[in-house]
Amino acid sequence: MPTYSCRTKEELQQEQSKLLARYAALKQEDLKLDMSRGKPSKLQLDLVSDILTVLTDPADCIIDGVDSRNYGDLAGLPCAREYWADVLGCKPSQTFVGGNASLTLMYDLIARAYAYGLKDSPKPWCKEEKVKFLCPSPGYDRHFRITESFGFELIIIPMTPDGPDMDMVEDLVKDPAVKGIWCVPKYSNPQGYNYSEETIDRFANLKPAAPDFAIMWDNAYCVHEFDGEFQPFRDIISLCAEAGRPNMAYEFASTSKITLPGAGISVMASSEENIAYHLKHIGVQTISYDKLNQLRHVKYLKNRAHTLEVMKRHAVIMAPKFEMVLRMLRAELTNKGVAHWHHPQGGYFVCVAAMPGTAKRTLELCTQAGVTLTPAGATYPYGIDPNDSMIRVAPSLPPIEELEKAMQVFCVSLKLAALEKMLSEM
Amino acid sequence: MPTYSCRTKEELQQEQSKLLARYAALKQEDLKLDMSRGKPSKLQLDLVSDILTVLTDPADCIIDGVDSRNYGDLAGLPCAREYWADVLGCKPSQTFVGGNASLTLMYDLIARAYAYGLKDSPKPWCKEEKVKFLCPSPGYDRHFRITESFGFELIIIPMTPDGPDMDMVEDLVKDPAVKGIWCVPKYSNPQGYNYSEETIDRFANLKPAAPDFAIMWDNAYCVHEFDGEFQPFRDIISLCAEAGRPNMAYEFASTSKITLPGAGISVMASSEENIAYHLKHIGVQTISYDKLNQLRHVKYLKNRAHTLEVMKRHAVIMAPKFEMVLRMLRAELTNKGVAHWHHPQGGYFVCVAAMPGTAKRTLELCTQAGVTLTPAGATYPYGIDPNDSMIRVAPSLPPIEELEKAMQVFCVSLKLAALEKMLSEM
Repeated sequence: MPTYSCRTKEELQQEQSKLLARYAALKQEDLKLDMSRGKPSKLQLDLVSDILTVLTDPADCIIDGVDSRNYGDLAGLPCAREYWADVLGCKPSQTFVGGNASLTLMYDLIARAYAYGLKDSPKPWCKEEKVKFLCPSPGYDRHFRITESFGFELIIIPMTPDGPDMDMVEDLVKDPAVKGIWCVPKYSNPQGYNYSEETIDRFANLKPAAPDFAIMWDNAYCVHEFDGEFQPFRDIISLCAEAGRPNMAYEFASTSKITLPGAGISVMASSEENIAYHLKHIGVQTISYDKLNQLRHVKYLKNRAHTLEVMKRHAVIMAPKFEMVLRMLRAELTNKGVAHWHHPQGGYFVCVAAMPGTAKRTLELCTQAGVTLTPAGATYPYGIDPNDSMIRVAPSLPPIEELEKAMQVFCVSLKLAALEKMLSEM
Repeated sequence: MPTYSCRTKEELQQEQSKLLARYAALKQEDLKLDMSRGKPSKLQLDLVSDILTVLTDPADCIIDGVDSRNYGDLAGLPCAREYWADVLGCKPSQTFVGGNASLTLMYDLIARAYAYGLKDSPKPWCKEEKVKFLCPSPGYDRHFRITESFGFELIIIPMTPDGPDMDMVEDLVKDPAVKGIWCVPKYSNPQGYNYSEETIDRFANLKPAAPDFAIMWDNAYCVHEFDGEFQPFRDIISLCAEAGRPNMAYEFASTSKITLPGAGISVMASSEENIAYHLKHIGVQTISYDKLNQLRHVKYLKNRAHTLEVMKRHAVIMAPKFEMVLRMLRAELTNKGVAHWHHPQGGYFVCVAAMPGTAKRTLELCTQAGVTLTPAGATYPYGIDPNDSMIRVAPSLPPIEELEKAMQVFCVSLKLAALEKMLSEM
């Protein structure tokens, strides 16, 4: 059958009837399925259970002469800084190891920029008349919400399979009110794109008018392949240094999706000068983060090589779920002209671009049939997708048995929303 | 022998010679003793080692249907909120359970007041022309530094054995620019005073001109008796509610000095309305705090009654150290007219009021003899003690064998500093 747009009104109505029947049948099943957030599944949590017993004795808690149980070591346990430097490909002195949420490290960085300014700020951002922030979209709703909460003006940068539209980025950073950009360089949330070599070079070589322009480089999925081998990534910290702006980039990562989402450790990496500047402020906020949990992680994850082995075990659980989602999308939506999507090899999401103007309606139909997805618009600043098109599918949490059903609901809903729109415009 | 002030110049010079000889002998011992911060000792850390093994199995991590390993439950695990409500005497719904540092909860509260305003703020504090903050002094340096970091004007409120000078507090809060006050109501840092019933009543009944005036009620030592039975404390949250200002107080506590300083859990308690307001903002900063560690603590500490049993075991280690400090102070400094101090029954410090103008010099002499104490002035806003008198002694960290020596150095140094001053003025 040809794409919907080549069919007659009658053919579309026939298709609609068939889909409505399927939808009614699915609705009767009283489903309660959640594909709204990138939450690891219970199976994934169970596979790292050995981390619960790596520290059982007082002697286990002392490392390199430091008692990780007591106050101190604000920048993190030295071995934890070494661990992250190994994972990220930077130097231990360029890292700050935090608590269980890299989101907090990002929020706190922006909050410090707001209250005190960054290392190279002419003044605190709260004293600026206007602060603008670049938001490659679709992107991560929690990133955008941080900068929204401080009243910044959020500017949409279209995403391409190579990363953000760099022509637009290079143009906009000429405005000194533009203070930063949110990036997920590997397996971008939600599309799963990897920034190209060229994109990364252009980031490192940015010459923003704002001396304190901040590249918020959230490497959330740096080792999170579920399909194929580990894909190395470049060290943005040294690239920026080589390009003459060593203080421009802040890289973030965490073990939330390596060990335990609620109880992992996080890292912020940047120039030594930046780390020193932020330590001064972080020292007002805390005496130290949880070093015992840092040690627990270092003993369990060891280094990058061993971390990649742990990730292979996650992949065994994740891969079939993504295969199922992609298979269902192919089977239900190929050649209909109502949606397109990228096939990611890592990360936590599949992003479906529905026919413009139908994302909200698709999700409404899903909700009515008991399937919860990330709200439409969530992947855009202020929660508004100007095209009402992008839908983020998060297949990690439900057991695979439920996923097929959830995807049936999703695909039927998406097609119904498209047909409603097309028929109403005929 | 009479107090120094009644002695002749010759008598003082004789005393000085004797002390200089003792000082020289002590200096030759090449000591390296640290009484600078309220750090628990290794013995104390070891006594809670069972907390390392309360969660060893995936099944241990699930409580009341919540998997503490995964994302979620921003306000804290329900059982952790119940635990803190039991300890503090408030309701679980009035608590927010955080990570390993109550200091961070305090800092973040002030940071949110600065960026967004508090629940009843006319505007964010960063938009106010001036913000003033009351600092009962001597007090906790890290409190003062938080409010200093945001550029507030810090106002010294003298401390009395009943708590802050409430006449002065009641007068100053008539100024709408006065936005809050730091309090350590039980075993105040550093003097170890307990706020009296009347002081607490006057706090609850404050009628500040600022609608968003914040009582920062740091109940850091709420169960931290080392001498005698647990002394119950009153619930400031309900007292403020009864007095008609339910949103005025924020109470803080942590297990830093109950379990492990580097790896405990913390709490903020306030009105339900305040908690709801802050959850909205905290939800931008994080998905959840480390709930696994919250569960570890609840399973280990159980409730207030069992927490008090754990504290008894700390007291066994702490009491002899405080006895030693107080015995040395009595033996060396009684009836000299060069210092006075309070005998605390809990907390982590002894505060010695040296002869005005001699604290810095005393600590200089201590440092030269290898004994580190909290820097002079640290217990006052901006690190400046207007009388150069208060010295905070923190006896918890050194083994008791070292403490006697450290106190010898301290007492000799203090007397030498006093003699230097008196003789130079004769």
